[in-house]
Amino acid sequence: MSKISSDLALFNELVETLISEEEKNPVAGRIDSDELYDAIDLSLNESAMVDDEFKSVLREIVISTPKTATNLFFNQLFGGRQSKAVLGDLLAVMLNNSMYTYKVAGPQVGIEQEIIRKSCNLIGYGPTSNGTFPTGGSMSNYMAMVMARDAKDPNCRLDGMSRPMVAYTSIESHYSIAKNASFSGVGRNNIRYIQADSNGKMIPEKLEEQIIADIRVGFIPAFVNATAGTTVLGAFDPINEIADITEKYNIWLHVDGAYSGGVIFSNKYKYLVNGIERSQSFSYNAHKMLGTPLTCSIILVNDKKQLHDSFSNDADYLYQTDGDDFNLGKTSFQCGRRNDALKFWTLWKSVGTIGLKKIVDQQFELADVALEYIRSNPDYTLYSFDDSISVCFNYKDTDPMDLCTALYEHQVTVVGFGSFKENTFVRFVTINANNSKKDILNFFKVLEGFVEQNPALIKTKETTRERL
Amino acid sequence: MSKISSDLALFNELVETLISEEEKNPVAGRIDSDELYDAIDLSLNESAMVDDEFKSVLREIVISTPKTATNLFFNQLFGGRQSKAVLGDLLAVMLNNSMYTYKVAGPQVGIEQEIIRKSCNLIGYGPTSNGTFPTGGSMSNYMAMVMARDAKDPNCRLDGMSRPMVAYTSIESHYSIAKNASFSGVGRNNIRYIQADSNGKMIPEKLEEQIIADIRVGFIPAFVNATAGTTVLGAFDPINEIADITEKYNIWLHVDGAYSGGVIFSNKYKYLVNGIERSQSFSYNAHKMLGTPLTCSIILVNDKKQLHDSFSNDADYLYQTDGDDFNLGKTSFQCGRRNDALKFWTLWKSVGTIGLKKIVDQQFELADVALEYIRSNPDYTLYSFDDSISVCFNYKDTDPMDLCTALYEHQVTVVGFGSFKENTFVRFVTINANNSKKDILNFFKVLEGFVEQNPALIKTKETTRERL
Repeated sequence: MSKISSDLALFNELVETLISEEEKNPVAGRIDSDELYDAIDLSLNESAMVDDEFKSVLREIVISTPKTATNLFFNQLFGGRQSKAVLGDLLAVMLNNSMYTYKVAGPQVGIEQEIIRKSCNLIGYGPTSNGTFPTGGSMSNYMAMVMARDAKDPNCRLDGMSRPMVAYTSIESHYSIAKNASFSGVGRNNIRYIQADSNGKMIPEKLEEQIIADIRVGFIPAFVNATAGTTVLGAFDPINEIADITEKYNIWLHVDGAYSGGVIFSNKYKYLVNGIERSQSFSYNAHKMLGTPLTCSIILVNDKKQLHDSFSNDADYLYQTDGDDFNLGKTSFQCGRRNDALKFWTLWKSVGTIGLKKIVDQQFELADVALEYIRSNPDYTLYSFDDSISVCFNYKDTDPMDLCTALYEHQVTVVGFGSFKENTFVRFVTINANNSKKDILNFFKVLEGFVEQNPALIKTKETTRERL
Repeated sequence: MSKISSDLALFNELVETLISEEEKNPVAGRIDSDELYDAIDLSLNESAMVDDEFKSVLREIVISTPKTATNLFFNQLFGGRQSKAVLGDLLAVMLNNSMYTYKVAGPQVGIEQEIIRKSCNLIGYGPTSNGTFPTGGSMSNYMAMVMARDAKDPNCRLDGMSRPMVAYTSIESHYSIAKNASFSGVGRNNIRYIQADSNGKMIPEKLEEQIIADIRVGFIPAFVNATAGTTVLGAFDPINEIADITEKYNIWLHVDGAYSGGVIFSNKYKYLVNGIERSQSFSYNAHKMLGTPLTCSIILVNDKKQLHDSFSNDADYLYQTDGDDFNLGKTSFQCGRRNDALKFWTLWKSVGTIGLKKIVDQQFELADVALEYIRSNPDYTLYSFDDSISVCFNYKDTDPMDLCTALYEHQVTVVGFGSFKENTFVRFVTINANNSKKDILNFFKVLEGFVEQNPALIKTKETTRERL
């Protein structure tokens, strides 16, 4: 048996272990971080490890790695496993093309471009639109900020940042906006955090006030980030109202749909991004709402010239055949680039746009199940709103931070907490479209059972007094 | 059969097709880019595709995608397939962890950190060293430039770029340095391209002259990039001589070992990066010399505080358990991040450091085979030098650009061209360690046979005259 055949056989064996473990122990046995290096032999050494030992340590690793595809994982803005997407990503590993040129990526270039074209059509971008696959949501936001900066002052690319530019984003937006301001030479202090309303949406009037104030003192407003699905609440900023302002003041409007931009596939929920066609760029992560393996992030630009102007570079040693439309390295941040497109293509091709719609709608239906359960149960307090797959709540008088940590440490279920204004709460994310109504109700049952067994988690007046 | 099982079965079937195709047709049948969308049904549609058609279109795609793992692919700075690394990357797809926190990545955090620790030890970095896995070589260089900028002026993170900083790199270095200068607010015009000697190595005296000239006119020298394996010739800049200068003027020294930094694993060739321990950062791509699937890029920093200062960001909704040493999102560019470490770990663990050494040494041995063949054959002109796995040559009076394009279009072998000073030539890269001496000699035989069948490729005095 050739090396690759025997390693593929081992892969299949380990996948069997993984899938059976996922059923038996949906939450992996946890190893305390302090004990990790003693618990598993992760050491890299001078000599090779014999096959049997290697197989056995790999098996241990598979078993003790947190399970993100099971019906008790609700911790992150991804989860579950769309098997047709998995198929595509496994193939991408075997094919191992770099996406910069047609010469070495061939049809994979067409696969990437077809996803971009169809996505642009869905959001109403025009004939000069295009896009690329950045390495994640933060990078998508970063590319947007760089394009905005360069569009405002093309000289910046050559001579560096010299004029004080300002970027605007909601206080509820993703932290990458702040990091990106630092990376791009804009500076974190030149981010203006715009207040959100009681539902977590950016208040357009506050945005305009701030822009006027900045212009008055000589700052150059360059970039507005609207969020389609804020990190904690899953709120949607009002794009049309924001676009009225960005058009008036000639500012780049980016829509960060990393989390919930997948609503563009749903007839029922795409109204949440009404006005999206008025943006200059829009990004969404197929590894979030669409359920592909990590990472699969897409940025679309209404005018592809902007992408080219900010990211192209000649390289004779690289671009030797075919035209720019097929040599995708001319519009990417990177040089060598992994094929992140195939996994999304295999999913989309096999289930159709109609299948993607079902995947997205299912998540909102699961959120509705959770909302209904919470609203009808006086032990719960709800902190989130309709039309979001982040369901935020507190249970009895438990402290959400203590509760989430205890649930994790006892391997009951994996879920996190978040904050909005003065409240902190459990953030339960119904993003795994493989889940059914039963799985959602089971989560609450599991949580309640755990609290019942651990009554100390409930803050009584006494314990609160003791703490003070 | 569950969905995932049937898709895994399909994966295994397609891999069989792929491997048998790689043997039968090491160069994939080429589809002209103009005809791509007519040749294969890449279209994404409203409705699902029925299973049989889906399977058949996937088969077509597998067959017509350029083969990068075969013994006739020499086009890029990667190639071949280390099967133990493939195993790890396939598992990473199935496990689907995001690397930001211990809570959702668990032992995968230790896997990443063990690679970083052992790599730091190998290059002689001290106890405060650390690193991360950026998304590729360009990103590694970018992170280094951002850290250099921030180390020179920490205020830059907050208030943006305001003082003119300068970055230095050899004229032979990778184009990402120029792009990164644009992205980071430094500006492309503030890159100083330092001359290379006749072997393609940066001339340290020219570097110092330029630094002195810049200081004289008020520029702030912030970043020197030395290359360990230039893109075309595979030359190594003299790190010790460069470090003498960066230490004297207090400038960040980064060593870009994306291409050939893998020499750190070879007792025989690691002298090529002598002085590496004096750098502030060093990056190498395991998907190049170590043969893992794309992408697997590692940046090491001598002082982890720099990494943290430039890339960390608080995020209460994310970092909820365990310490900073286990929550790797605090030192990465990205938020959600694919597991690029497991594939390198499975390779390293299974073959040992001694096995990685063999992989690297084999590439130099293959280059020696090619060099010897060229030197002993008067039909060839050699343009590259010893201690490089880029073997650069011209054959008879063929035009290297025409020759490479014809070889590609006729599906004979895939190889590219490059330039150094006034010469352009075929750049033959012996990076696939699965190749044997026979494969290298076969490449020349194939090339010669092709030219014999296509004598028009040889520029005679007549054809040259006709062209004029």
